[in-house]
Amino acid sequence: MHTTFFTRKLTKNFHFALLACASLVFSPLNTVNAATLNASEQADMSALSKTALKSDLSYDLVESLTTEVGPRMMGTPGDAKAIVWAVEKMKNLGFDKVWTEEVTGTQWLRGQAEAKITAPYPHNVVAIALGGSVGTGEQGLTAQVAHFENLDALKAAKPGSLKGKIAFVSYKMSRHIAGKGYGAAVGTRVNGATIAAEKGAVALIMRSVGTDSNRVAHTGVMRYKDGVNKIPAAALSNPDADLLVNQLKRGKPVSFYLKLTASIEDEQIIKSANVIGEITGSESPEQIVAIGAHLDSWDVGTGALDDGIGVAMVMAAAHHISKLENRPKRTIRVILYAAEEVGLLGAKQYMIDHKDEVKNHVMGAEWDFGVGKIYEMTPRVGASGLNAVRDLSKYLAPLGVTLSAKNNGRASSDMGLLTDAGMPSMRLSADGSHYFDYHHTENDTLDKVNPKDLQQNTAVYTLFAYFAAQAEVDFRK
Amino acid sequence: MHTTFFTRKLTKNFHFALLACASLVFSPLNTVNAATLNASEQADMSALSKTALKSDLSYDLVESLTTEVGPRMMGTPGDAKAIVWAVEKMKNLGFDKVWTEEVTGTQWLRGQAEAKITAPYPHNVVAIALGGSVGTGEQGLTAQVAHFENLDALKAAKPGSLKGKIAFVSYKMSRHIAGKGYGAAVGTRVNGATIAAEKGAVALIMRSVGTDSNRVAHTGVMRYKDGVNKIPAAALSNPDADLLVNQLKRGKPVSFYLKLTASIEDEQIIKSANVIGEITGSESPEQIVAIGAHLDSWDVGTGALDDGIGVAMVMAAAHHISKLENRPKRTIRVILYAAEEVGLLGAKQYMIDHKDEVKNHVMGAEWDFGVGKIYEMTPRVGASGLNAVRDLSKYLAPLGVTLSAKNNGRASSDMGLLTDAGMPSMRLSADGSHYFDYHHTENDTLDKVNPKDLQQNTAVYTLFAYFAAQAEVDFRK
Repeated sequence: MHTTFFTRKLTKNFHFALLACASLVFSPLNTVNAATLNASEQADMSALSKTALKSDLSYDLVESLTTEVGPRMMGTPGDAKAIVWAVEKMKNLGFDKVWTEEVTGTQWLRGQAEAKITAPYPHNVVAIALGGSVGTGEQGLTAQVAHFENLDALKAAKPGSLKGKIAFVSYKMSRHIAGKGYGAAVGTRVNGATIAAEKGAVALIMRSVGTDSNRVAHTGVMRYKDGVNKIPAAALSNPDADLLVNQLKRGKPVSFYLKLTASIEDEQIIKSANVIGEITGSESPEQIVAIGAHLDSWDVGTGALDDGIGVAMVMAAAHHISKLENRPKRTIRVILYAAEEVGLLGAKQYMIDHKDEVKNHVMGAEWDFGVGKIYEMTPRVGASGLNAVRDLSKYLAPLGVTLSAKNNGRASSDMGLLTDAGMPSMRLSADGSHYFDYHHTENDTLDKVNPKDLQQNTAVYTLFAYFAAQAEVDFRK
Repeated sequence: MHTTFFTRKLTKNFHFALLACASLVFSPLNTVNAATLNASEQADMSALSKTALKSDLSYDLVESLTTEVGPRMMGTPGDAKAIVWAVEKMKNLGFDKVWTEEVTGTQWLRGQAEAKITAPYPHNVVAIALGGSVGTGEQGLTAQVAHFENLDALKAAKPGSLKGKIAFVSYKMSRHIAGKGYGAAVGTRVNGATIAAEKGAVALIMRSVGTDSNRVAHTGVMRYKDGVNKIPAAALSNPDADLLVNQLKRGKPVSFYLKLTASIEDEQIIKSANVIGEITGSESPEQIVAIGAHLDSWDVGTGALDDGIGVAMVMAAAHHISKLENRPKRTIRVILYAAEEVGLLGAKQYMIDHKDEVKNHVMGAEWDFGVGKIYEMTPRVGASGLNAVRDLSKYLAPLGVTLSAKNNGRASSDMGLLTDAGMPSMRLSADGSHYFDYHHTENDTLDKVNPKDLQQNTAVYTLFAYFAAQAEVDFRK
C-alpha cells in the first residue's frame, strides 16, 4: 500500500516534485522556503514550545492514567475505566468536543501461566501466554523440547517431525534505536504456533521478543491459521530462555511442562470505544489535523510507555494549543484508539465510521513507539507539502529533530490505516533503544517515563499540530 | 567486635605498627619492601595471572551450578544437590581433600505471595515474603495502609497508632559502588515487622531493598523479637512501591490486601553442610589460607551473583594453584559455607567445628559482594603483615586493584566471624553499583555474569591465595 500510494502521488504531482527536488539540491535548508507561517503564528510557535517544555501536563496525565486506571486491555474493567478517564480529562482540559465511538471485539482471557523444565535439571521458569493463545487445560502438558534457533529453522522442519513435542524458538532480538530488531523477532510470536502445529507440535514456546534480561516475559498478539490445529503458545523470560538453551546444549533430552489457563471466548462480544476530542478550527473546521495514540494496553504492566505517554502527549499538545488567544484555523482532532494491541480494532472501526471524512484529514501523526526523545521526522506528503514540511523542520530542529531525506513516513500503528487511505502523514521517530526492554511486560510502568524527554516530545507534537493547522498548504499536493 | 579486635592488635604490635606507619609515610610504595616472594614464586605469580585471565573455568563452574542445580535455599532439594555438585567438582578439579561438615537449622517455607491495592484504585502488585516471615493464612488480610518514609518515622509512631493497619515503609535505597545504600535500607527489612507490630500493625510492607526498577521484589532475611507479635512481612517491587506512594499522595484512604502462605516450621530440623576442599601445603600443611564463598542462595533466582560467582572463583583459584609444579607451602582451604542467607548458620558451625584451628588460619578472604571488577584491597593485618600486603598489591595493581590506606578489612559475611576471632583478613572490594539491581531476586541469573570481569576477579583471588600461601610472614604480627 505504501509504494502504490507514493507512486500515484509522485505521478500526479510530477512538476511539483521536480521543483521540490531542485530546491533540495541547490538551496541550503534555511533559505528554500518562503515562511509558511505569518509573524503572529511564528510567535505562537515560539510560545507553544516554551509552554510545552516547562509544562508538567503530559507527565501528570500519564501519572494519572497509570495510577488511577492502570492496565486496560480491551474488555477488562480497566478498559472501561480508561474511557471514562479520557472523556473526563479532555473535558477538563478545555476540548471543544469530546465523544466516543463504539468498538466491538471478542473476548480473550489470559488466565494463569505455569512453566518448568522437568528434566534433566528441573527449574521453574517465567512464562506468559501470547495474546490470543488457547490454553492447555488445567492439567497442563509435558513434552520433550525441540529446539530451533529461529523461525526459518522451524519452517524447515519436516511435517510430522515435531509430533508430540514442544517447539522452542530461541531467536534473540537485537537492540536498535528504531526497533529494527523487532521485525526479525516478531514473526515467531505471530505465526510460530501455526507453523509448529503444522509440523505436529503440541505447543510453542519462544524466547521473549524483548531486549532486556529480566525474569519478566513479553506478551503480544499471535494468530492462528484456519484449518491448522490451535496449540498453546507462550513466551519465556529471556534469562529462562538462556537457561533452557544451556540445558539443551548438554545433549540430553529436555522435557518441559506448560500450563496456560488462557481461553478464547468467541461467542462473547465485548465493547470498547475510540475516544475523540477536538479543538475546533476557526477558519476550516471541517479540515482535520489528527494526532493519536492508543488508549488500551496489555493487561500486565500499567501501559505507561505503550501507550500512556502517547495518550498524554497528544492530549497535552491539543490543550496547549487550546490556550492560545485564538482557535487554530483547522480542527485538531485527538484520537485515542481502542483495542490496538489485540489487532487495531479501534483503527479499523475509525476507518468505517469516518470513511467519508478521510479526505478531510489534512495531516496526521501517532505516537506508538519509543521511550526517549524524538530525533527524526519523516513526512509522507506531496511536493508542495514537502516545502511546508521543510519549514516545519526549522521549528523542530532546536528540539533535536532532524528531517529525514525520505518521504515515506507512514503514521504509526492505528493511524497507518489513514496513511494507507491517502492522509498526508508524519512519522516522528523517537529513540526506541530501550523500548523493547519493557514492551508488553509487567515492567511497562511509570518509572520508565523520563519527564524531560516527555516534555520535549510533547513540544514536538504541539508544534507539529499547530503548524499543520495553520499552514496554508495542501499537504497532499 | 571489629573495633575491639583492631585495638588489641595495635596495642600488642605497637612497635611494629609504628614502624609500618613510618614506612607508609616516608617511603614510596614501590620501594618499601624487600620482595616477599623469591624469583621462582614471582614467576608462578605471573603464570597464574595469565592462566586465570584466559581460563573459562570459573565461568563454566557458575554456568554449571546455575544450570544444573539452580536455587539452593537451605533445606530445599536444590541445597542437597548443590552439596553433591560441589563435592564432585572439587574432586574432579584435583583438590587433595574434599569433605563436608553438617550444619543444621529449622525450616522456613516461602509459600505463595499475593498482593493488591484494593482502594481507591485497585491494582495487583508484585510482592515477596521476607525470609522468615509468618504467613497471613490462606484468606489473607486487608487493611488500611499507614505510610512511613523511613524506619525512623515508623519508630516514631505512637504505640497503638497502627492498630489494625498495614505499615508501609517506602524508603528508597541509593546506588553506590560499595553498596553503602544497603545499610540505610536493610534495617526495615530486618527489624521493621517487629517495630510495626509494637505499634499495633497487622502486617509490614516495604519498598524492596534494591536499586532496580523491575516488577521483581527483593527478599532477604528478617527477624522477630521475642515477646512481640509476629506479623507477616513482605517487600513490594520498586515500581509497585512507587504506585502505592502515588496513590497515597492523593490523600484518600488506601487499602491493601496481602496474602502470604509462608510458614515457620520450628519443629522440623533440616540439614545442610559446609563443603570444604583443600590443596594441601607442602611445607606447613597445618597453616591455612582460607578462601570462601557461600554455597546456598535464596530460592528465587539461580544464585548466579549471590554467591555462585564466589563459589566458582574460589574453586577455580585453588584449581589453578593446584596445577603448578609444586604444591604451595601452606594449605589453601576453600570453604563453601552453608546457609549464609538464612543467618550465617554454616559460618557459625565452622567456628564451632574449627575452634582449635582458628589460630592456624593465616589469612582469609571471602567473595560475597558485587558483580563487577575488584578495584580495592583492604587488609586487616599486623604491621609486618602490612609490609607483605604492600608487596602483594604490586601484583594486583595490573589487575586494577588499589591498596586501601585502611587496615580494617573484615572478610565478607561468613568469614567475618574468622576475622572477628583474629584471623588476618583481606577485603577484596568489587564494583557493586549494579549488585542491588539483582540481589535476592528472581533476576539473579547467569546472564548478569560478565565473563571478562569473572576472569579478572578469579585472577585476583588466585594471586592472593598463592601469595598468602608462600609469603614467609606472620600476617598477624
